Amino acid sequence: MENKIVKYFSQITSLSQDEASVLEEGMVVTHLKKDTFLIRDGQISIDTYFIIEGCLRQYCLIDGEEKTTNFFTEGQWVISLTGLTQNTPSFHNLVCMEETSLVIGNEQKAQELFKKFPRFETLARVVVEKSFAEQQQLMTAYHTDTPEERYLKLQRSRPDLFQRVSQYHMASYIGVKPESLSRIRKRIAKNKL
Amino acid sequence: MENKIVKYFSQITSLSQDEASVLEEGMVVTHLKKDTFLIRDGQISIDTYFIIEGCLRQYCLIDGEEKTTNFFTEGQWVISLTGLTQNTPSFHNLVCMEETSLVIGNEQKAQELFKKFPRFETLARVVVEKSFAEQQQLMTAYHTDTPEERYLKLQRSRPDLFQRVSQYHMASYIGVKPESLSRIRKRIAKNKL
Repeated sequence: MENKIVKYFSQITSLSQDEASVLEEGMVVTHLKKDTFLIRDGQISIDTYFIIEGCLRQYCLIDGEEKTTNFFTEGQWVISLTGLTQNTPSFHNLVCMEETSLVIGNEQKAQELFKKFPRFETLARVVVEKSFAEQQQLMTAYHTDTPEERYLKLQRSRPDLFQRVSQYHMASYIGVKPESLSRIRKRIAKNKL
Repeated sequence: MENKIVKYFSQITSLSQDEASVLEEGMVVTHLKKDTFLIRDGQISIDTYFIIEGCLRQYCLIDGEEKTTNFFTEGQWVISLTGLTQNTPSFHNLVCMEETSLVIGNEQKAQELFKKFPRFETLARVVVEKSFAEQQQLMTAYHTDTPEERYLKLQRSRPDLFQRVSQYHMASYIGVKPESLSRIRKRIAKNKL
């Protein structure tokens, strides 16, 4: 299997043979079945995930109802920092929507790697900055976009999600009831004619 | 003046005399008048700010109306990564609500510093992670908290804001009309009796 995490880092900076080898050896891929939970709300999580293949759904429970807050797929990082920097329990649940392969990392493993290969600290900073930037854009979208705009943006930026995710979870993610999502889809289809 | 940015970093890790000196000399403090804009929406911003003294308000315009999305005060960082990593124009405006003193940094300055003092890269990573964690908590709060819960949380976590920020902007920040904020305040006052 081609090593996706090596490929990912190579796109940020060129890796030496040594650096590539240490990543290939050190990054153990974990395979998880559909419906496996990686985090349940209330747990303190200090792990970071890099998704090789598959799809995770992040959600929180509000008055007993699931509110989907994110989907993570191949090539994305899931970084939960509240557990790491503030020892705060997670508000979120994180569950596999498909069979998923991922690499699990944490601060301790990262520190060991940085000691041997200081340049990895630069990579880590870039990864955190990219995830932070994505998060900032999501946050802005919550303020500025209507559910219909969110739907259209998703169609452009993450078309694969529409094949992988149920209408029910998609509706929750863009912030409407499933009935409203049907109306939005009909309206968009009509406008395209 | 005691150097607040040196003090800030010293809380994360102990600095050598050399490291403290380079920070003290390199970090130029800029003084800004009330109502000065640091970013206007549509501009591409690659700067990062560390606030020494004062208060910034971040807001975006939605259908011509200002929606306040954050307040930043002493000891906080303002990190806008979308300009840096994706060359995307800012959706936000950033304006001084008081006379404000801050240090302005950017990626180029940071890289120069990292070359001379590699340990600063660790500090940079910690700073970005802390800001990211704060942002994740804000994002979660948007999903899970009612405006009243947001108000109560702010009273606990940032009591100074209530002396510094108008009711109007506070209402926008917690996501209600000013009239509703008055009702929330009355209800909270009554519950405390």
